[in-house]
Amino acid sequence: MGGDNAPDMVIDGVEAAARQNPKLRFLLYGDETRLNDILQSRPAAMAASEVRHAPDVIGSGDKPAVALRAGRQSSMRLAINAVGDGEADAVVSAGNTGALMAMAKFVLKTLPGIDRPAIATYFPTMRRETVMLDLGANIECDADNLLQFAVMGEVFARNVLGCEHPRVGILNVGAEDMKGNQAVRGAAELLQQTNLPIRFHGFVEGDDIAKGTVDVIVTDGFTGNVALKTAEGMASMFGHFLRSALTSSVFGKLGALIARPALLQFKKKFDPRLYNGAMFVGLNGICVKSHGGTDGIGFANAIGVAVNLVRNNFNEGIKEDCAQLLEDRDNAQIGGDADDVEKPEAAAS
Amino acid sequence: MGGDNAPDMVIDGVEAAARQNPKLRFLLYGDETRLNDILQSRPAAMAASEVRHAPDVIGSGDKPAVALRAGRQSSMRLAINAVGDGEADAVVSAGNTGALMAMAKFVLKTLPGIDRPAIATYFPTMRRETVMLDLGANIECDADNLLQFAVMGEVFARNVLGCEHPRVGILNVGAEDMKGNQAVRGAAELLQQTNLPIRFHGFVEGDDIAKGTVDVIVTDGFTGNVALKTAEGMASMFGHFLRSALTSSVFGKLGALIARPALLQFKKKFDPRLYNGAMFVGLNGICVKSHGGTDGIGFANAIGVAVNLVRNNFNEGIKEDCAQLLEDRDNAQIGGDADDVEKPEAAAS
Repeated sequence: MGGDNAPDMVIDGVEAAARQNPKLRFLLYGDETRLNDILQSRPAAMAASEVRHAPDVIGSGDKPAVALRAGRQSSMRLAINAVGDGEADAVVSAGNTGALMAMAKFVLKTLPGIDRPAIATYFPTMRRETVMLDLGANIECDADNLLQFAVMGEVFARNVLGCEHPRVGILNVGAEDMKGNQAVRGAAELLQQTNLPIRFHGFVEGDDIAKGTVDVIVTDGFTGNVALKTAEGMASMFGHFLRSALTSSVFGKLGALIARPALLQFKKKFDPRLYNGAMFVGLNGICVKSHGGTDGIGFANAIGVAVNLVRNNFNEGIKEDCAQLLEDRDNAQIGGDADDVEKPEAAAS
Repeated sequence: MGGDNAPDMVIDGVEAAARQNPKLRFLLYGDETRLNDILQSRPAAMAASEVRHAPDVIGSGDKPAVALRAGRQSSMRLAINAVGDGEADAVVSAGNTGALMAMAKFVLKTLPGIDRPAIATYFPTMRRETVMLDLGANIECDADNLLQFAVMGEVFARNVLGCEHPRVGILNVGAEDMKGNQAVRGAAELLQQTNLPIRFHGFVEGDDIAKGTVDVIVTDGFTGNVALKTAEGMASMFGHFLRSALTSSVFGKLGALIARPALLQFKKKFDPRLYNGAMFVGLNGICVKSHGGTDGIGFANAIGVAVNLVRNNFNEGIKEDCAQLLEDRDNAQIGGDADDVEKPEAAAS
């Protein structure tokens, strides 16, 4: 029921996804009457879906804490419960991001070794696709949070994007070791020391995002959110000025007409619908957030993102790496304890 | 002597600036022999310049503290001294940013009411030009720092960009009041309370940068640096993919040929040389940093930025607004003291 043109847009997405992949099965939570009505004209979606009535809806302006408390019978909550109960493999929603994260955290819990879930997405670059996280779930992060994001991003790039040895970079204001704040410098140290086979590239800067310098970009949710939205804004601006340049004169129009297939290919490369679907990573269950303003094609893509996470055992990969991470931490803890024990001895001697 | 192709590139810039504006006069600091040699083939620069020998050069990898201590006879330091001594109205350098900021801060000092200088630049948006600061001088900022950046950015938009009532926004991860960290929320409160006639728009997000939602974007140096470089990277990526789309087929090439004037106009809009020149604002003297990798046209633009700051009495404008800011602070201080006085009375009663 979430999103600008829901539930029609959502069911359009289900229709497109069901046609692309006839094995998919859907549980649709929301206003039963409306959903069944819409399904009449979406045969593939109808064949693949079971409608479950949800009396409430989370509004786009509802605060996460309120949604958590008062939204127990909302379509969003019931859909998340289906994942928590093992009835569904993943939940996809175009609704309120904060409410979705709060509920998903509450119902699904975080994976062992992950302190805080993050929001991740991948996008095209000059090399290949890059995954970036966190994009807004955690405004302030410490070195451990960033390390955990690095682990999850690396698993995603390896298991889901199929990148054999993903390179991981931390977003910073310069490449040198002494640059940046405590969190990024601390995370860099942890990544240099970890026993996990992570290919740590070091620090990267804002322009490395589009360059595709690394396969995984790790950052706090404040910086990541600003960077992603800055990039999206630039994409819109370029489209706008290119269009206006090519429609401002007869020669511009004629040239654009002749180069139309090439320009359409260019446009398609940056079609935001093809990259729709932000992943909530670090949860004990797959949860994907679609942009609220997308259409059926975009929502189908978000469903595809969820399917890819399930198929490629994304969470199993994280669990394995986190087991190593927890072992590293325990060993460091034992080392730390040993130091503590030595101090009184030294004082006594 | 700073920059990738210095000093040739710098003198190319002086040549271009001197031709555009025959009233400008230059003091060129560096290796006397080399500079005089290069000037032989740049008649306008030669006529407008006086060469001053500087035995040392700050390297691009030198740490700011080292440059400050050991660089007293460097071309960079002597050029800054010329502003400090009142011999020059502004200094423009394509050298090491950190060293330039450290030396400029040491020699010129900050303006009254400004705790920390910032790096600012302006760029094209979908509306008009927007100025953004800080872009990297201050990795961590508190609410007062951000307020001071807002004041300086507002003066720039008004006095230099000619925007009558500039709208000021603080970069954040959402528009709602409760979003973001303590610094941005605190700065928003200060901007709502100030007696300065600043048109405070509220929080803006990353995509508002390209949209031109506000005329002044205030942010800490970490976020600002990442956002600016992300935008630059996106611009390169778009250029790259557009070129490759238009050269990948015969029709693409033909269309591009016919639409060439329109495409060149589009390209020019985003020519980074036309926006070269980052301003160090908040110092008691004008200091502009050119990109090290630019050419003569770009360096001439950085000179133009410095000239605009001088001509439009940028620092005088800041001083006036800061006087008000300091008065606000004093009043708040008196209010605070009054509260302190009342408390013991209440305790005694």
